[in-house]
Amino acid sequence: MNKIVLIGATGTIGKAVAAALQQREHEVIAVGRGSGALNADIADIQQVRALFDKIGKIDAVISAAGDIHFGPLAEITPEQFAIGLRSKLMGQVNVAQVAAQYLNDGGSITLTSGVLADTPIRYGAAATMTNAAVEGYVRGAAVELPRGLRLNVVSPSILQESLPAYGPYFSGWEAVPAARVAQAYVRSVEGVQTGQVFRVV
Amino acid sequence: MNKIVLIGATGTIGKAVAAALQQREHEVIAVGRGSGALNADIADIQQVRALFDKIGKIDAVISAAGDIHFGPLAEITPEQFAIGLRSKLMGQVNVAQVAAQYLNDGGSITLTSGVLADTPIRYGAAATMTNAAVEGYVRGAAVELPRGLRLNVVSPSILQESLPAYGPYFSGWEAVPAARVAQAYVRSVEGVQTGQVFRVV
Ligand SMILES: NC(=O)c1ccc[n+]([C@@H]2O[C@H](COP(=O)([O-])OP(=O)(O)OC[C@H]3O[C@@H](n4cnc5c(N)ncnc54)[C@H](OP(=O)(O)O)[C@@H]3O)[C@@H](O)[C@H]2O)c1
Ligand SMILES: NC(=O)c1ccc[n+]([C@@H]2O[C@H](COP(=O)([O-])OP(=O)(O)OC[C@H]3O[C@@H](n4cnc5c(N)ncnc54)[C@H](OP(=O)(O)O)[C@@H]3O)[C@@H](O)[C@H]2O)c1
Repeated sequence: MNKIVLIGATGTIGKAVAAALQQREHEVIAVGRGSGALNADIADIQQVRALFDKIGKIDAVISAAGDIHFGPLAEITPEQFAIGLRSKLMGQVNVAQVAAQYLNDGGSITLTSGVLADTPIRYGAAATMTNAAVEGYVRGAAVELPRGLRLNVVSPSILQESLPAYGPYFSGWEAVPAARVAQAYVRSVEGVQTGQVFRVV
Repeated sequence: MNKIVLIGATGTIGKAVAAALQQREHEVIAVGRGSGALNADIADIQQVRALFDKIGKIDAVISAAGDIHFGPLAEITPEQFAIGLRSKLMGQVNVAQVAAQYLNDGGSITLTSGVLADTPIRYGAAATMTNAAVEGYVRGAAVELPRGLRLNVVSPSILQESLPAYGPYFSGWEAVPAARVAQAYVRSVEGVQTGQVFRVV
């Protein structure tokens, strides 16, 4: 049994991850901005520091959180590109950088990108950019983590559960069930790999 | 003969690109913050807009500019991650987004990433993250450009000319000559591909 901080635990992905971790008898500490057992906005590193300071030593952290702006390329402003950079990219980087100081030896960090990192769609330029950046951070940072700490990222395709919200962007795509996506996080937490992108497509 | 805006024309890469373009009889408009025929800081989209407004219609734009912070992973602050995001990532995104409005039909945009996007090195987490983000932007945005505009990115390995400055980070790497790197920009400008990463390793 591991003590695992799950950021975004009330989300579409997070709920399925929490269920999968509990089935494996891990202890899950649920975090969100306004939901979960503890609250922190990951875009603010001070709040991330306060969060982990309160929790203390842990075995793993998972982030399945972070916003991105979608819109026609020609209309995306620097401020709209910055939404994903601040929230999904630097929010998750904040989590990884701070969590590294609280993880037990051999502990695991798992972030979330998305299939758009590899595959562009209409209105998705900021998403492809931001998700690629998250994967770049993971690839770049994993090699420098001390004490056997591991760092990976799960890249899900569009979830079946999210088709009502995002379906029109993903015509003709095969959506994946949240329960399948959740297994990639389990694999990241309990496995031995580091610096990897676990794609669920 | 094409009219080509070259941002970073006085740099190690930019000088070689300017020479290669002139050899192909293109007209090169050299831009830097403080060097070149025209000045603009690409991190500031207002300066980028003023630059292209002054130049008018063009056939191609190349950016070989942008800073990144190097340092030990555990010591990289959010402000240091932001250097690359503001300069190398959003600076180049600003160039692409604004230039798209000034390019003639079929025109070409070429940005610069770097081999660290694919291959991590010690002290390079922010570089891998930022370069991956630049490539993500190119992949994501290329599909939405109108009027046959093309968008690519050149990813050079460490340059022979830069070994005096960066050599210690790249022990055992095969450095590439600037003249070879420059040909990838020529290929991007004069070719037919879009959304591609031209790796020079
Ligand atoms: N759903 C998909 O099909 C899909 C596919 C690929 C990738 N993804 C990515 O996976 C991530 C989660 O997606 P989702 O659909 O599960 O999202 P969601 O249903 O909107 O849930 C987001 C979760 O993250 C928390 N959260 C959001 N921003 C936060 C912040 N700044 N600080 C702390 N917690 C925050 C939310 O809680 P509070 O509201 O309480 O803050 C909520 O628990 C996103 O980055 C998304 O881009 C999703
Ligand atoms: N050199 C290498 O081995 C290598 C390898 C892979 C990737 N790269 C990447 O290639 C790019 C160029 O590298 P380099 O070695 O040629 O750099 P460099 O020698 O330092 O030259 C940089 C050039 O860009 C201009 N510049 C810098 N920041 C700018 C800004 N914010 N706005 C407008 N112009 C700006 C500089 O002119 P001013 O000083 O007048 O602004 C100069 O002309 C960098 O992004 C670097 O990461 C380099």
